[in-house]
Amino acid sequence: MSLTVVGSIAYDAVQTPHGGRERMLGGAAVHFALAASFFDEVRVVGPVGDDFGDEEYAVLHGRNVITDDIEHVAGGKTFFWSGIYHENMNSRDTLETDLNVFEHFDPKLSQASRDCDVLFLANILPSLQLNVRRQCDKARFVALDSMDLWINIAKEPLIAAISEVDCVILNDGEVTQFTGEREIVAGARKIMDLGPSAMVVKLGKYGAALVTPDESFWIPAFPVDFVADPTGAGDSFAGGFVGCVAAHGGDASTDVLRLAMAYGTAIASFNVEEFGTERVARLTGEEIVARVEELRRITAFDTVALSLR
Amino acid sequence: MSLTVVGSIAYDAVQTPHGGRERMLGGAAVHFALAASFFDEVRVVGPVGDDFGDEEYAVLHGRNVITDDIEHVAGGKTFFWSGIYHENMNSRDTLETDLNVFEHFDPKLSQASRDCDVLFLANILPSLQLNVRRQCDKARFVALDSMDLWINIAKEPLIAAISEVDCVILNDGEVTQFTGEREIVAGARKIMDLGPSAMVVKLGKYGAALVTPDESFWIPAFPVDFVADPTGAGDSFAGGFVGCVAAHGGDASTDVLRLAMAYGTAIASFNVEEFGTERVARLTGEEIVARVEELRRITAFDTVALSLR
Repeated sequence: MSLTVVGSIAYDAVQTPHGGRERMLGGAAVHFALAASFFDEVRVVGPVGDDFGDEEYAVLHGRNVITDDIEHVAGGKTFFWSGIYHENMNSRDTLETDLNVFEHFDPKLSQASRDCDVLFLANILPSLQLNVRRQCDKARFVALDSMDLWINIAKEPLIAAISEVDCVILNDGEVTQFTGEREIVAGARKIMDLGPSAMVVKLGKYGAALVTPDESFWIPAFPVDFVADPTGAGDSFAGGFVGCVAAHGGDASTDVLRLAMAYGTAIASFNVEEFGTERVARLTGEEIVARVEELRRITAFDTVALSLR
Repeated sequence: MSLTVVGSIAYDAVQTPHGGRERMLGGAAVHFALAASFFDEVRVVGPVGDDFGDEEYAVLHGRNVITDDIEHVAGGKTFFWSGIYHENMNSRDTLETDLNVFEHFDPKLSQASRDCDVLFLANILPSLQLNVRRQCDKARFVALDSMDLWINIAKEPLIAAISEVDCVILNDGEVTQFTGEREIVAGARKIMDLGPSAMVVKLGKYGAALVTPDESFWIPAFPVDFVADPTGAGDSFAGGFVGCVAAHGGDASTDVLRLAMAYGTAIASFNVEEFGTERVARLTGEEIVARVEELRRITAFDTVALSLR
């Protein structure tokens, strides 16, 4: 099996109540690829500039991510984002977004990337997502992420892209913005009416929900002792989630998707404990499995027949 | 077994995006008692004024709640609260709070109320909570709710009250306000250091967490199709939670507390589907059990040994 991810490769600057970094490796495709690398062979498609160096490649290669389709734009600069998290860590303000080489990104997939069994379309222009999705016509499972900006200014292309994927991943605010529905299941069902057979609704520090045509599934965030930096948590989640589906041969049965929610949750919880990719870059499979098992323990209960009055 | 609740009995006026009510039965003790009435004999202690009538008593008696300790203050008016919910239903503004008979409330417990096996101290002045707690010296399980106001202006009396109960129920914002801790488990542990052996952290529409010295447990809100009015949801949750512990003889073992979290969650989900007490007043035990079982189904997953790379 092989997994391709298309999306941003970036330098991030962040400030949180616990400190900050002036320049760290980031981007949705990077966080996704590191997380997914525990499950499958992962190819990253995305652009970088002259400033993207050996140290950054080393982080990806350290997790055996295949970087052949990272496009080096000569004379260009890598996408840069900077933001500051509020005191409660729940929300953040973007200070600066320099698209740089990302501005004219036109994904070019090698044959190996096109031949993927599983595809993740990270948050980029919806028309590009559709373009890539159609190139990967053998993919058995395709998931897509997006953001408020595209719901605002490119809703029709986003609907077109959504209609050709198996699974959409958005946060609860975006689902409400997209559908006008306040309730998560109702909103997710409206999006699934466009074509997808599953929808993941990210709830930030409260966890995530999986909605399929017949049921829903809910998992809390793994309770960590300390959150240093939430940046990339959603993409790490997606990497664990989609990676787990890939490890099951693209099988999107309910049991696999639920387990995938747990793996995504576990990896995201490591991501937030340190800045950027720092923690996930040295993560081990054993650590991930231990948190998945702990997630089962902290959510399980037995129903007992009580005779109610 | 018997259960006593001390707290507010009120008329509420609410507006939500789905409509409103100009005057409906409410108050923490009322919502709690209706929910707990499915599990045990429940006595309500709280003050009402001349305006509190047969119709309101009928709602409580309809669920076999014992109202002997409802204190009728002649010439007084019942506590009145009005509020308006924001578009997202997550937050609300208080428009008016008329304490009325509640202003000089000094709980008077009959012998039967004092002899309770389980006691719930709904959100009232912390010094009164402590007073009542000491009167009920045979209680095997005592839980306490509070609010931001008391954390701000009566923290020492609140700490004194907390130090003599078994379980504290607060929302996540209040835990952070009380302890300065951003993370739920860390905050809950700080509060438990004051004495309690369990802490419930309410997460609003995202569910609730149970923290005990050795572990945590997380349950989502039951996903309803429609939320008409969140007023009283937290007290309905507490009624189901504490009621379930009472139904187990005040046994606060982990298994009982987890099941209690599910019962509280299930009853709260009915509460929000209609205004005030309207839905819970005609709720059945079968409906509650069905949602508890559904909660188990929508949170369960099997861990499967994956060989990670």
